[in-house]
Amino acid sequence: MKYNKEGNFAYINVMDYIENKVKTGAWTLGKKLPTQRDMAYSFNVNRSTIIHAYNRLKDKGILESKTGSGTYVSDQYYSSISRQIVNWTDFSRYSVHPVNHQVVQKINRLETKENLIQLGKGELHHSLFPKYKFQKSLNSMADMYHDYGYNDATGDKRFKEAIRYYLQQRGVSCTISSILPVSGALQALQLISLGLLQYGSTVFTSNISYIHSLHVFRATGMQMKGIPLHNGSLNTKQLRRQLHIPTLNSVLYLNPTFHNPTGETMSAETRREIIKISQEYQLPIIEDDIFRDLWIDKEPEPPIASIDHHGHTLLVGSFSKTIAPTLRIGWIAAPEDVIEKLSDLRMQLDYGTSSLPQLAVYDFIKTGKYEQHLKKLRIELKKRRDKMHSLLEKYLNDIATWKCPEGGMFFWVKFSEKISINELFSRLLDHGILINPGYIYSPYNNQYVRLSYVSTTMEDMETGVHAIKKVTDGM
Amino acid sequence: MKYNKEGNFAYINVMDYIENKVKTGAWTLGKKLPTQRDMAYSFNVNRSTIIHAYNRLKDKGILESKTGSGTYVSDQYYSSISRQIVNWTDFSRYSVHPVNHQVVQKINRLETKENLIQLGKGELHHSLFPKYKFQKSLNSMADMYHDYGYNDATGDKRFKEAIRYYLQQRGVSCTISSILPVSGALQALQLISLGLLQYGSTVFTSNISYIHSLHVFRATGMQMKGIPLHNGSLNTKQLRRQLHIPTLNSVLYLNPTFHNPTGETMSAETRREIIKISQEYQLPIIEDDIFRDLWIDKEPEPPIASIDHHGHTLLVGSFSKTIAPTLRIGWIAAPEDVIEKLSDLRMQLDYGTSSLPQLAVYDFIKTGKYEQHLKKLRIELKKRRDKMHSLLEKYLNDIATWKCPEGGMFFWVKFSEKISINELFSRLLDHGILINPGYIYSPYNNQYVRLSYVSTTMEDMETGVHAIKKVTDGM
Repeated sequence: MKYNKEGNFAYINVMDYIENKVKTGAWTLGKKLPTQRDMAYSFNVNRSTIIHAYNRLKDKGILESKTGSGTYVSDQYYSSISRQIVNWTDFSRYSVHPVNHQVVQKINRLETKENLIQLGKGELHHSLFPKYKFQKSLNSMADMYHDYGYNDATGDKRFKEAIRYYLQQRGVSCTISSILPVSGALQALQLISLGLLQYGSTVFTSNISYIHSLHVFRATGMQMKGIPLHNGSLNTKQLRRQLHIPTLNSVLYLNPTFHNPTGETMSAETRREIIKISQEYQLPIIEDDIFRDLWIDKEPEPPIASIDHHGHTLLVGSFSKTIAPTLRIGWIAAPEDVIEKLSDLRMQLDYGTSSLPQLAVYDFIKTGKYEQHLKKLRIELKKRRDKMHSLLEKYLNDIATWKCPEGGMFFWVKFSEKISINELFSRLLDHGILINPGYIYSPYNNQYVRLSYVSTTMEDMETGVHAIKKVTDGM
Repeated sequence: MKYNKEGNFAYINVMDYIENKVKTGAWTLGKKLPTQRDMAYSFNVNRSTIIHAYNRLKDKGILESKTGSGTYVSDQYYSSISRQIVNWTDFSRYSVHPVNHQVVQKINRLETKENLIQLGKGELHHSLFPKYKFQKSLNSMADMYHDYGYNDATGDKRFKEAIRYYLQQRGVSCTISSILPVSGALQALQLISLGLLQYGSTVFTSNISYIHSLHVFRATGMQMKGIPLHNGSLNTKQLRRQLHIPTLNSVLYLNPTFHNPTGETMSAETRREIIKISQEYQLPIIEDDIFRDLWIDKEPEPPIASIDHHGHTLLVGSFSKTIAPTLRIGWIAAPEDVIEKLSDLRMQLDYGTSSLPQLAVYDFIKTGKYEQHLKKLRIELKKRRDKMHSLLEKYLNDIATWKCPEGGMFFWVKFSEKISINELFSRLLDHGILINPGYIYSPYNNQYVRLSYVSTTMEDMETGVHAIKKVTDGM
């Protein structure tokens, strides 16, 4: 007697759904229900059907209305059992870990919507993932996975050997004991922060930065100090000036190659200067190098870690940007003492990284398929980067400026003062287009927008940039 | 000109090894070298070879001796380049996250040694892993893995549906939005602690507990309050007494089924009393239920979560104890509000759990292979539990007492006062046998030892228990 589509008993379907949520404890007492509009949309029924279902549930004492506020799971329903119930929202309001910035939370949510044009997302469009090639590596897993038991959280030797080889190809020599697999760059930052820094340690970084890095450092009690960018590179003079102020153990966090969000790459000269500063002030460096393999025109400068012979640089990499984010696999390369310490920390936090993604990536690298994939990917990246560049010239030449990136995923586009980025963000969303406003990367960059040339189809890219033109015309 | 075995040039091999470590930054300046004995063992050469290699490296200025302290990577070596170097050991001494208890660190390290008899380890012996059956699930991965892109960290729907079904079979009804995949129980505790508790929140738990749980709560700023056990169940009267003292948001952490390390299972009556207390005091419960599927004689009491209809219980499970620890896959089942909050937290910490172990376990459950595996496993567990019981009777009847467990992995053995557990631990290690001393689970239980009946061969189990007899005879 249930109908998914409008029918005599459609409201029963809705009632069952809600009663089930309440009965199973998924919706706890006092929970606010979705709006009638949202429910009608979800069930593909008229609002009147939802209103009817809500009313019936109110009659049954399961729901209750609060005037002007909405419909709630009723307190009375369970009153015979208990008068008091944990309010989880209150419970977590003052939690140790602060909640995400609201706009960031919103973007996180919207980034999973398939009906939106993802014009800001830091992720390859699904057509660019190496699905066919990678399947072969997945197929080899059953033969490779034989260490079922707990290990010491230092990771699978085969994966580490593959990373050692991978790094060697990119100018960095290290031993396999200097490599720790992690679930991605974000976890790497969390481990470094928890394992090596102190509450109140200073993290120097460019004053425009990957949002989640700032968050993870702040959440673990670090002070952030922004260093301005100068011609796309870190202003090292400013950094030196800051370092004269005595601080607790400090660290320098950099994303020197195809920087997120600006797309800039540090010159060889600045890299050398950074190393010099690191020696002089005993300032360790976290080098976040996750975009390196996405070069288009020419191979970028080798990692800072390759010219640091003092073990000051903790090099962080990931395959989320080149193979697949849902694999959750990356690595830290650092002095063995550091890796030992961070492995111990992982034994306390989560017992290390799953063997499965380690083995799949090991096979992908070992068989040369990873490099084959990159070669093919670079051709696509060039097409897309050039397309985005020409679209910006075609539509936004009058109201925005940008620099054409040599790799990575993003154009960092500056709009003229007359454009409100907040309004642009909202209006584009109404058109089904999601962009990343610059202010989430830095409060000083509220005229900027991060546009991705990798995360949509070519057609959607044109639709998206054209929509920006149309929306800004009306502002 | 290199020899792995003793030969004219064996010392060159050692020198190359060390020079490479120093050159690549894996061993940084000031690092203390392994002892000559350890090095000789590692290279399978005489100590004189190591001494020769060390001396040559001292001549080259790469190593230096400090009298009575050992051999170090020399400061002078790099003096032309820099006088100052980050001392990572100092750097991390005051880190946010405290280092592991030394004995625990030692056990962590020793648990990966294959030449030791693992008589304390909480892990199935490799012959008990479902390798053959699981390979089929691994083989299905290539067809199942198609969502390469970032998701919202809430996990793969297929995995969550499998867990919903799994929980239903065990008496817990919930929706898939109430389920969050995690890397294991340990990460679940970390997420709950960071996401729902406050600095200084009180975590009530039995005063004998899984060591890493205590560590993760403490490291995130929680106060631990131990509640004594009473006839193997939590002393609920004591808990009530404690709850009269006003505290910040508190939480009760329980491992009610085949408790680690005691092996005890809470009665239905105590479970109901716990739920009553939870209602009365609005005290949320973390139910760590990772040993449930390892029952031997009869199915244990259903989870506390199954009799809690108020959404107070956060149920935590894992497949590390039944399929394989290196998969790193488990789950939290909790009210949707809580799951939403914890998913947001994961977006900030590590972007969620790898899809690969989720899909492998989904297939393993869906095809019925998981239940088949458990059935077979239980037969083996019974054999082993009975064997351990008879060995204890045969060898340790005079000096120890224990209760035969109905499931899980452990015997919690109490030794007579005349036995020093610390000495027992050390002497057994000399015999190549590793046990877990009770005091790492609780300072009040320094006459106890945790013995595992699942982590060795049957032969090694006998060798191990017999060795305890021999060692204690001499004490």
